Amino acid sequence: MRRTSFSDMDCSVAQTLEVIGEWWTLLILRDSFQGVRRFDDFQRRLGVARNVLTQRLDRLVEQGILERRQYQDRPPRYEYRLTEKGLDLYPVVIALMDWGDRWATDPDGPPVTLTHKPCGHDGTPIFTCLHCSEKVTARDMRFRYNAGRPRTPLVPA
Amino acid sequence: MRRTSFSDMDCSVAQTLEVIGEWWTLLILRDSFQGVRRFDDFQRRLGVARNVLTQRLDRLVEQGILERRQYQDRPPRYEYRLTEKGLDLYPVVIALMDWGDRWATDPDGPPVTLTHKPCGHDGTPIFTCLHCSEKVTARDMRFRYNAGRPRTPLVPA
Repeated sequence: MRRTSFSDMDCSVAQTLEVIGEWWTLLILRDSFQGVRRFDDFQRRLGVARNVLTQRLDRLVEQGILERRQYQDRPPRYEYRLTEKGLDLYPVVIALMDWGDRWATDPDGPPVTLTHKPCGHDGTPIFTCLHCSEKVTARDMRFRYNAGRPRTPLVPA
Repeated sequence: MRRTSFSDMDCSVAQTLEVIGEWWTLLILRDSFQGVRRFDDFQRRLGVARNVLTQRLDRLVEQGILERRQYQDRPPRYEYRLTEKGLDLYPVVIALMDWGDRWATDPDGPPVTLTHKPCGHDGTPIFTCLHCSEKVTARDMRFRYNAGRPRTPLVPA
């Protein structure tokens, strides 16, 4: 379905998109974070074609993001659960949600509220500096390539 | 190019993906955050077909994420700059990068280092609770739908 692979790019954004950047995949992960585990539940919530869903789930299992477990013998039925590698995608899903809450939802406001269980407060998590703990925006950050990188030039010869 | 629209879904993740979820778009935004502004520079860095790049850039301009500005008269040439709405996508790009740094890059480690300009320290921003400032993981968070939401049922009738 994809027209080009990003796998040769020496870039962590590209490598992540190579794994989860296909149409539907991030909505499957959103549903996984909401507790959806079964094929038919994903299919009904998303309204996605079954062959596309199968392909996306297989890819996520193959990449170690979802784990496929049999929960019934006759007939055999499977559920899909997030692994540690998959759970670690939470900031990606929440960052997408947060931007949509601000820029792309309807006048009634966000459909979902998040609560931080340890402290009990509502609120969508934010990105903060690892050191000074201040909230971070694009203008606050500067980037540099590490020595010898990118290994594959971004500008082809 | 997309086979289905997510625009009817009452979900901020889906609404965001509707705008930026197409193949290539997030790499265009990554490059914008790295200071790339000109069509030919995007094209060379990404190796994407010119017609696809044109389509993706037009869509980002139409959505108010990039602004198209003429920087030369004869022949007319344009550059693409992030708007406030676009700059606000920084956490999405950083979340993708951070996951890739941990799970999808090569043994030499991440290709890029970020610095927080106000405090001067290196380090990728972390995802923290808005209230208690503790680092957040998926297991720490719970979600609920707000009253009357989702407006469009996730499970179709």
